[in-house]
Amino acid sequence: MADSAGRKRRGGGRAGASARRGTSVIEQMPWSIPINRDNPIEPMPPEGVEAIHEGAMRILEEIGVVFLNPEALAIFKQAGCKVDGELVRFDRDFIMEMIAKAPSEFTITPRNPDRTIPIGGNHMLFGNVSSPPNYWDMEIGRKVPGNREMCQNLLKLTQYFNCIHFAGGYPVEPVDIHASVRHLDVLFDKLTITDKAMHAYSLGKERVEDVMEMVRIAGGLSHEEFDAKPHMYTNINSTSPLKHDYPMIDGCLRLARRGQAIVVSPFTLAGAMAPVTMAGAVAQSIAESLCAIALFQYVAPGTPCVIGTFTSNVDMKTGAPAFGTPEYMRSTQMTGQMARFYNLPMRSSGVCAANVPDGQAMWETSNSLWAAVQSGTHMVYHAAGWLEGGLIASPEKFIMDCEILQQIQRYSQPEIWRTDTDDIAFDAIQEVGNEGHFFGIQHTQDRYSTAFYQPFLSDWKNYEGWEAAGAIWTPERAHHMFKDIIANFEEPPMDVAIRDELADFVARRKSEGGAPTDF
Amino acid sequence: MADSAGRKRRGGGRAGASARRGTSVIEQMPWSIPINRDNPIEPMPPEGVEAIHEGAMRILEEIGVVFLNPEALAIFKQAGCKVDGELVRFDRDFIMEMIAKAPSEFTITPRNPDRTIPIGGNHMLFGNVSSPPNYWDMEIGRKVPGNREMCQNLLKLTQYFNCIHFAGGYPVEPVDIHASVRHLDVLFDKLTITDKAMHAYSLGKERVEDVMEMVRIAGGLSHEEFDAKPHMYTNINSTSPLKHDYPMIDGCLRLARRGQAIVVSPFTLAGAMAPVTMAGAVAQSIAESLCAIALFQYVAPGTPCVIGTFTSNVDMKTGAPAFGTPEYMRSTQMTGQMARFYNLPMRSSGVCAANVPDGQAMWETSNSLWAAVQSGTHMVYHAAGWLEGGLIASPEKFIMDCEILQQIQRYSQPEIWRTDTDDIAFDAIQEVGNEGHFFGIQHTQDRYSTAFYQPFLSDWKNYEGWEAAGAIWTPERAHHMFKDIIANFEEPPMDVAIRDELADFVARRKSEGGAPTDF
Repeated sequence: MADSAGRKRRGGGRAGASARRGTSVIEQMPWSIPINRDNPIEPMPPEGVEAIHEGAMRILEEIGVVFLNPEALAIFKQAGCKVDGELVRFDRDFIMEMIAKAPSEFTITPRNPDRTIPIGGNHMLFGNVSSPPNYWDMEIGRKVPGNREMCQNLLKLTQYFNCIHFAGGYPVEPVDIHASVRHLDVLFDKLTITDKAMHAYSLGKERVEDVMEMVRIAGGLSHEEFDAKPHMYTNINSTSPLKHDYPMIDGCLRLARRGQAIVVSPFTLAGAMAPVTMAGAVAQSIAESLCAIALFQYVAPGTPCVIGTFTSNVDMKTGAPAFGTPEYMRSTQMTGQMARFYNLPMRSSGVCAANVPDGQAMWETSNSLWAAVQSGTHMVYHAAGWLEGGLIASPEKFIMDCEILQQIQRYSQPEIWRTDTDDIAFDAIQEVGNEGHFFGIQHTQDRYSTAFYQPFLSDWKNYEGWEAAGAIWTPERAHHMFKDIIANFEEPPMDVAIRDELADFVARRKSEGGAPTDF
Repeated sequence: MADSAGRKRRGGGRAGASARRGTSVIEQMPWSIPINRDNPIEPMPPEGVEAIHEGAMRILEEIGVVFLNPEALAIFKQAGCKVDGELVRFDRDFIMEMIAKAPSEFTITPRNPDRTIPIGGNHMLFGNVSSPPNYWDMEIGRKVPGNREMCQNLLKLTQYFNCIHFAGGYPVEPVDIHASVRHLDVLFDKLTITDKAMHAYSLGKERVEDVMEMVRIAGGLSHEEFDAKPHMYTNINSTSPLKHDYPMIDGCLRLARRGQAIVVSPFTLAGAMAPVTMAGAVAQSIAESLCAIALFQYVAPGTPCVIGTFTSNVDMKTGAPAFGTPEYMRSTQMTGQMARFYNLPMRSSGVCAANVPDGQAMWETSNSLWAAVQSGTHMVYHAAGWLEGGLIASPEKFIMDCEILQQIQRYSQPEIWRTDTDDIAFDAIQEVGNEGHFFGIQHTQDRYSTAFYQPFLSDWKNYEGWEAAGAIWTPERAHHMFKDIIANFEEPPMDVAIRDELADFVARRKSEGGAPTDF
């Protein structure tokens, strides 16, 4: 059995039903929505939560936030906020009243309704790395600019792995496609290669209108059906400190008015764009996200919104950002406390500073992923494939991260710690007594095939077995798997008419010139 | 500053006071006892804890445990337990009455009293890898049997790193020394190379009497002073299922009578030496440890005892043990719940199945180390240097693990999540306003040198900087560091007369033939 599993893993050429479903290369866990069953780790006492809240409210009331978007300024003025040029100051009652309109849980329904994701509650979802301009894999062996093929391959991994629940931003920026039409090509790839809930960049009117139309077409939806519930989401960053730019707010307003979901993730690097203290950086981050969420609630009450965190620290010797640090872990947990205080779903990330998929990459990524679990994060961005502080996407890293994600998924299954009579297994212990072992007994036989997590990438052979199999280190094993998955990948089904309509839309919009690139 | 730190790290040749203290190669955190400030993760509800307790009590009452030690059998008979040949059945009242005599907290005082370690409460301590028969480093590039030089080098790392709080078993088994005198040579090395609290193997009368005498000599203690409090500890494993062997119990009885500390860690691999269910494996493990602890409490009430866990799962395809798995994490947390139920300190481990210090090694080790934190573990065995399920010790892995341990240590410092007025930093946020950055302001300047964790092994340079510096992956960086640390290592001070007395003791005991090797 071990042999045949090994052949399956290596061969990659097995035909038949499972290959057609794109599941031939490895044996992975089925698609499921992990339930986070741990009580969150809460470093701050209630007074700490109050202190951060008070700090955020004072920032909003006394310092204010710049909105470089005239429409937002007009809306805030109408809502009674103090607008002074582009600077807006907010009454805390207004902020809290608006925030209270946001749902604590909602769903996003992609073109394949079986892939609907629930956001909030104790659900925990993972998405692919998003937006690195560069790419690294073991065959190329160095950092290179991303292109469309690399982006497509990473989208195939996004679709292939059941532990990836949503398709984030471009998994690598395909800089070989002109920026004016890049969104059209990548969205076509994304909507045909994957059938999972997806992200769209809020980069101006044209791109946002295009993506909503393409998601609507891909789902076979009428405009009314599209508007009726979230089918996609965007993520915006503020321009810290205390500023929101034009296109991101513009895009969000368009999405909010059509009922789509919005994640607001300030990028507050402590010591650079935010105070050097974690409490200060978190308070500023909260202020930046709450005022944007308040805007969307005022415009479209009930808009599904997620409070994001991207608070980490810099290396104070060089100013370089650091990720997966102890300070990152604690600020993520602190933000979790605040998200629960405001009754909003939360987003954090799977991140590292490492440049290659080595040991450092794995301890930094493990730190950030476990912080996501501990904080009660609902959406884990960049959960697979991220290197160099987000400047590099790597397929080997993607697959290595998926091994960790599957383990977190298994870690969340309550069968592990069940204590029913059969689990305590007194009879089995009595049967074996003080001699022998449990391998052969019925209690073991009845359970062994599902009792334990089976990794797809970890090599559990002893040293001699591992050496005989080529002494292959983890990234190289992941590289072989990457090639196999791509070679055997089959797209999820899509109605031909819908695919044609999508292609026609792309062609038409390209002929119109795509989107402006002067933002 | 970055440059000079870089030179320090690479050069390894700096003389002066810090070099004499053995701290020249890297800038590490000072010696301190980490305080675990997180609420433990408790997967089981109170009924689950009760079910495991009930299971353990029924195992002890109805099935019983074999003790292959006549003295222990006589003691149990005297105590009123049901002794049937070598099988002992215990009344739960006896077990609970005895367990209640064990302290929930105690200290171990090594030859350097500044290295005294508190065990229990919310303290969290890390020890080196113990007992692998084999060794791997990047220079050798393959698995080889351990020898004395390798063992000495790993002891130097144990001493060098401030995040290692105690010296466990032999960090690699020096099989080039005859087994009859091996303990004498390694104990001499251990007591001269390190000044940290140390472990002794419970392998029969001679070895245990020798180690107590050598620790007494090294500490400059009278016999009365030695007996007055713990100066060392042992760790024993049961022979699962449900059996304790002769030499381990013999050694423990000797140590208990002289007030030294005992860790009891059943090695219950679920599906092999214990039920395939985690609840069953934990219940059996608890039963095996409680009856041994009860024995020591009956003989010497108040003996400092620690409940250990080594419950993991096997690969059901091959029977090979697996470590750092989701099941391992949960069984560690479950054992933490039980240790608190019995009011005993707890030991777990930093473990992996990986054969080399690659990505897999780091995600498995991260899983097990974070499980130690989450479970409220007090003593983390094998926290640095373990590979191949404990069959290989590696200096590169040791150093990589220490980077994680330092991060856990930093993670535990409450300054990170403090929310005093200065931490919220409203004034600093107001000063920077909606433009500029926080690099130059006074609030940052006052704090930047200590605000964030500084890694000694992680490379936070961007890709281009990392490439220019040689594109060195983590294990190779650790290897260079290993060579530098060994080249610059200086032993902690020891009185010449004491050193001579130790050497004389070793020579005399060798001339007497050392210890028998027929156990």
